[in-house]
Amino acid sequence: MSIVFAERMNNVKKSFIREILKVTENPEVISFAGGLPNPLSFPIKEIQEASQKVLSENGNDVLQYSTTEGYLPLRQYIAERYFKRFGLKIDADEILITNGSQQGLDLIGKVLLNKNDNILIERPGYLGAIQAFSIFEPVFNSVPLNEDGVDTNLLESSLDMHRPKLFYTVPNFQNPSGITYSAENRKTTANILKKYNTIIVEDDPYGELRFMGQDLPPIRSYLEDNSIMLGSFSKIVAPGMRLGWICAKGEIMEKLIIAKQSADLHSNYYSQRVVYQFLIDNDLDGHIKKIKQLYKGQRDCMVSMIERYFPKEVKSTKPEGGMFLWITLPEGVSSLNLFDLAAKENVAFVPGDPFYANEEHTNTLRLNYTNCDEKMIEEGIKRLAKVTREIIKGKC
Amino acid sequence: MSIVFAERMNNVKKSFIREILKVTENPEVISFAGGLPNPLSFPIKEIQEASQKVLSENGNDVLQYSTTEGYLPLRQYIAERYFKRFGLKIDADEILITNGSQQGLDLIGKVLLNKNDNILIERPGYLGAIQAFSIFEPVFNSVPLNEDGVDTNLLESSLDMHRPKLFYTVPNFQNPSGITYSAENRKTTANILKKYNTIIVEDDPYGELRFMGQDLPPIRSYLEDNSIMLGSFSKIVAPGMRLGWICAKGEIMEKLIIAKQSADLHSNYYSQRVVYQFLIDNDLDGHIKKIKQLYKGQRDCMVSMIERYFPKEVKSTKPEGGMFLWITLPEGVSSLNLFDLAAKENVAFVPGDPFYANEEHTNTLRLNYTNCDEKMIEEGIKRLAKVTREIIKGKC
Repeated sequence: MSIVFAERMNNVKKSFIREILKVTENPEVISFAGGLPNPLSFPIKEIQEASQKVLSENGNDVLQYSTTEGYLPLRQYIAERYFKRFGLKIDADEILITNGSQQGLDLIGKVLLNKNDNILIERPGYLGAIQAFSIFEPVFNSVPLNEDGVDTNLLESSLDMHRPKLFYTVPNFQNPSGITYSAENRKTTANILKKYNTIIVEDDPYGELRFMGQDLPPIRSYLEDNSIMLGSFSKIVAPGMRLGWICAKGEIMEKLIIAKQSADLHSNYYSQRVVYQFLIDNDLDGHIKKIKQLYKGQRDCMVSMIERYFPKEVKSTKPEGGMFLWITLPEGVSSLNLFDLAAKENVAFVPGDPFYANEEHTNTLRLNYTNCDEKMIEEGIKRLAKVTREIIKGKC
Repeated sequence: MSIVFAERMNNVKKSFIREILKVTENPEVISFAGGLPNPLSFPIKEIQEASQKVLSENGNDVLQYSTTEGYLPLRQYIAERYFKRFGLKIDADEILITNGSQQGLDLIGKVLLNKNDNILIERPGYLGAIQAFSIFEPVFNSVPLNEDGVDTNLLESSLDMHRPKLFYTVPNFQNPSGITYSAENRKTTANILKKYNTIIVEDDPYGELRFMGQDLPPIRSYLEDNSIMLGSFSKIVAPGMRLGWICAKGEIMEKLIIAKQSADLHSNYYSQRVVYQFLIDNDLDGHIKKIKQLYKGQRDCMVSMIERYFPKEVKSTKPEGGMFLWITLPEGVSSLNLFDLAAKENVAFVPGDPFYANEEHTNTLRLNYTNCDEKMIEEGIKRLAKVTREIIKGKC
């Protein structure tokens, strides 16, 4: 028999990135495609110690079922860190532990989105969010990014025209563009959202990884009531622990907890205990400092290699943190075609298309710099520059 | 502003059990309410060793992002165990690792259920499934359980009348009733489902925990194509690791993988590696044998205490495995009212209501025996028998 699946599955494509990763399995390929942290940054020994400790001292507890909301001391730690970093007063009850921030996106879609609800995302936007929200069949609208953040004029006109239920943003070192919202842009964005009573979903997986400039307060600092923040331990501890969180209050949090219960009862409790033990027994800021030094070297290398080898008509962002930069080819040059040429030269990246809800054959692409050493970055950028020159010449 | 939530959240109640667990936080209370494994069964030392080993030998890998489908050797292990136990030929590609089998229920609902689709569950049925499916707004139909499994006459008439998209069943030591489908009943059930081309969702968290009698083949043995099986390591290793799986094939599995990607990218990889290491370095069958000895003692104690202390007009199931037994009070006696009386005597259980999709003020209740020692079981059953006698007398 042919099975009738739920309609919501019709719009969701298999993740583009995961398809690309299959190409990059060839060890000859230099990959700027994935979004993987550098394993050199993983605190393996410290995780070992934390694991031994929690199992020795509380094995019966850490291996048992636990609460949907997550381990209270871990939620308190997260809340306190918001206060320490930005003076934000957040209660532990406003923190829900999730399986990475990806689960946060799924739960938010679940509790907020009806079919055909308008939502607003950045253009380009994070593909994991596009994928997670797609399941709930909203209408995607998008607003372009400038160098200092979202285009606030177009943000306002889009809110006015579409009255979206939520605006999804990654204000720090955005995935895929590497762009960071300025302090001014954050404030203006908050005021516009307030005017239209729009919920903001502020996703911040990279905010702790700033190599240059000053940390900026979350948009939530200027707008409290309709804010949902997402955070993650994937980039500052390790993604294999699959731990992130949602920060929200009141009725939104109540609904999220109900959705989380039915989604998987609670997040991995053993990992929660191990990560919490790691956090209290070690110097997290010192650990993050080391990650930033590592990534800054890789980022600087890629930025200077692009300047050295790429044709001048190709534009590139210069991120102040995070893991990605964003390339814009001349008009009419397809990054999908470039991907095929590049694959033959054994270098890979993510073409722009999956970062747009409604566009194809874009002239943009994403490069990741955290997972190659400097020698590989130089060699990879050389290869990529060569095929980029060819494609621009031939305009294929 | 008041937020307009997704309509799907209107039907989902906060988990009843989790609300009850708040009552049972009082240490004076003897609780038969939860569904917790006995921590005496947790292989703490072995998990410690496994954790040390995978971090020492493959720390860079086990802490990194991984594939949506799950760790391949773990999936192979699960597939091989189906072969070893039942001669079922299952490919590792038919196994998707999930965050406990609860996530399996959520993913199945997501890919299969449109609003107002008919589905069929057991009466009484597993409340976690009712909760997970509710989110997708199906119409619940139910079919009663007899001592030897589902009532196959009513199964057939319900399939004929409602043409449900799926039938959800827990054929081994069912939660909540403790009932096990006989071999004959499994075969008949399979044939009826085949006739109507109905998908079976066969959930088996307790199947390995049989204290008496012989293991019986899954219903899937008699019906391959429209089968989805769910399994879990929560009851045979530890629930804190939050690892379960879905076994399905073809297009169903393809859609489930897409849904899993957008739900949380992949399950906790560190836990997958630790559990796999535990499985290959230890004797799982020997470990399970110890759990069964422990639980059999607890089960026998509860069964005999019920026989000794309970009024004769109260009926009780006698499970051959698993973690629960099911009490039926005389007609018209509300188990919700009994719960309130019992709470005053410091003993707790789960009233029947949350195990029915469409019924209230039922005369049934669930008792768990795995999380109390024999002394507590005797004392708890004495207290419960006392208030049961009172409520029957007063018919309140």
